[in-house]
Amino acid sequence: MASKGKISIIGSGLIGRNWAMLFASVGYNISLFDIDESRIDDALVDIKQQLNSLESKNLLRGSLNAEQQFSLIDKCISMEECLRNSIYCQECVFEKLELKVQVFQQIDKYVDDKTVLASSTSCLLPSSFSANLNHKSQVIVAHPVNPAYYIPLVELVPAPWTDEKVVARTRELMTEIGQKSVTLKKEIEGFLVNRVQYSILNECYRLIAGDYVSVEDIDSVMCDGLGLRYAFMGPWETAHLNANGMKEYFEKYSKGIYDVSKTFGEIPKMEGATADHIANELTSRIPLEKLNERRKWREERLIAITQLKKTLDKH
Amino acid sequence: MASKGKISIIGSGLIGRNWAMLFASVGYNISLFDIDESRIDDALVDIKQQLNSLESKNLLRGSLNAEQQFSLIDKCISMEECLRNSIYCQECVFEKLELKVQVFQQIDKYVDDKTVLASSTSCLLPSSFSANLNHKSQVIVAHPVNPAYYIPLVELVPAPWTDEKVVARTRELMTEIGQKSVTLKKEIEGFLVNRVQYSILNECYRLIAGDYVSVEDIDSVMCDGLGLRYAFMGPWETAHLNANGMKEYFEKYSKGIYDVSKTFGEIPKMEGATADHIANELTSRIPLEKLNERRKWREERLIAITQLKKTLDKH
Repeated sequence: MASKGKISIIGSGLIGRNWAMLFASVGYNISLFDIDESRIDDALVDIKQQLNSLESKNLLRGSLNAEQQFSLIDKCISMEECLRNSIYCQECVFEKLELKVQVFQQIDKYVDDKTVLASSTSCLLPSSFSANLNHKSQVIVAHPVNPAYYIPLVELVPAPWTDEKVVARTRELMTEIGQKSVTLKKEIEGFLVNRVQYSILNECYRLIAGDYVSVEDIDSVMCDGLGLRYAFMGPWETAHLNANGMKEYFEKYSKGIYDVSKTFGEIPKMEGATADHIANELTSRIPLEKLNERRKWREERLIAITQLKKTLDKH
Repeated sequence: MASKGKISIIGSGLIGRNWAMLFASVGYNISLFDIDESRIDDALVDIKQQLNSLESKNLLRGSLNAEQQFSLIDKCISMEECLRNSIYCQECVFEKLELKVQVFQQIDKYVDDKTVLASSTSCLLPSSFSANLNHKSQVIVAHPVNPAYYIPLVELVPAPWTDEKVVARTRELMTEIGQKSVTLKKEIEGFLVNRVQYSILNECYRLIAGDYVSVEDIDSVMCDGLGLRYAFMGPWETAHLNANGMKEYFEKYSKGIYDVSKTFGEIPKMEGATADHIANELTSRIPLEKLNERRKWREERLIAITQLKKTLDKH
């Protein structure tokens, strides 16, 4: 089996493991690095188990079998060695600015002018940890959504100095591993996923704070209503279809949307009595010791809907 | 077959037809009224066709067959007769305040003290069209989401003077016909569904206006990312699972959410160059003459996910 090239994963936590599996699924060689050797060993045990379990459930991605995919993933205890001849590096360390700065400074030392330097961060602007790097034009954020093995979305966020070719190369790679990338034209706080999530959370928080509705009912608005459509189409296409096209939608509803939106009120600080109330309601609905069971419940459904969408799109 | 009681539908458009089918599916007698007799005839032809088509695809709701369900739906050309001995009236006329006021004034004349008077409005506050009615304590909004035969959500909105028993009775009825109701404790502009939708649209609009992303990519953030989770769980449960419970989520992320949200900017007026750009992008992606085809594409998927959820929940 000829290698397609080498990909470096820096950080062997949940996100690093997911990335390793995604890249191995199409035949890349993975070099998995962590600062603590025992964590890499743990990660490899877990990855092997996951790949075997996926294979037994017929959910393994790619055309290689679990053993072949696992054999592509190597443990690496030196960052220099991990990055040598690497075509793409995916950084997956903790979400602390100082740590990212430090890790990227190290990465910077060991790469050539061609390696794409991607960060998995969900919240740090790429400019914040790449400004002083020699290879700063190679830095990009590639932020996945958990669990990435089942949710295709990856948002790509360039820094102001990121080379357009790096963006294009990352986009190609995401397509190759079967993920769906969206590209920000420039960086912005929260990127896209969190800005949309926070818009929803803010309004849902205010509706609870104003005693308009229960926490459970607001969740139901999404999963028994809007969410069923959103699994298949975004907010703009939904609007386009709900009127005779988007032009008519704006003509009919823009004023009403504005008038309703004017009543939204301030951005809430999510702390104090309302936050406690929400946390208590959720904890009585799903106690902390049941969280893992519920996460499995969710994973089962994410797998099912991913397969459903594939099946429907084939027809 | 003993009748379960009579339900009046005022207005025979798409929403009225959907309600008629939902109530008939569990055995209620439906009296379908419209101001224009020929529109009722058209509606009945369409309903019959829909029921037969649903039956042939094994998608018919309830335990009665299509013929039995259709036989429960009667045409009625007098509002007085339509409302006589009715236990529940669902108003489905156009979304114009003056029209709703006028229709509810007529309804008010012909009902007794027990009939629930529900409006399908998506945007008019129940207080705005019921203030001067004799039976104003019987008025409630029961707003479905289109297409209601496949999307279970119905939001119930009481006016300040709505009797608590009317709310409870409507909630029971929604459960009986297999819909999932959520209850507002008091009325608010846009109710829940539209407030959540508008929160999303506002931020997505600003992201386009600021040239951060394409219309297609913002849609993809939802349907390839967030929407897959939202088909099964709302924003609060999602957050509860993404941390070790909601308490930890607030502790970890409240400040970050607030900081990002402060950058959202003003509520946009959805008009002018950005609105045109969005409309043009959508129209080139899905031309107006393809809207119906795409609506069918969506319906097919809504049916599939509704069935998938039922199957998964049975295990």
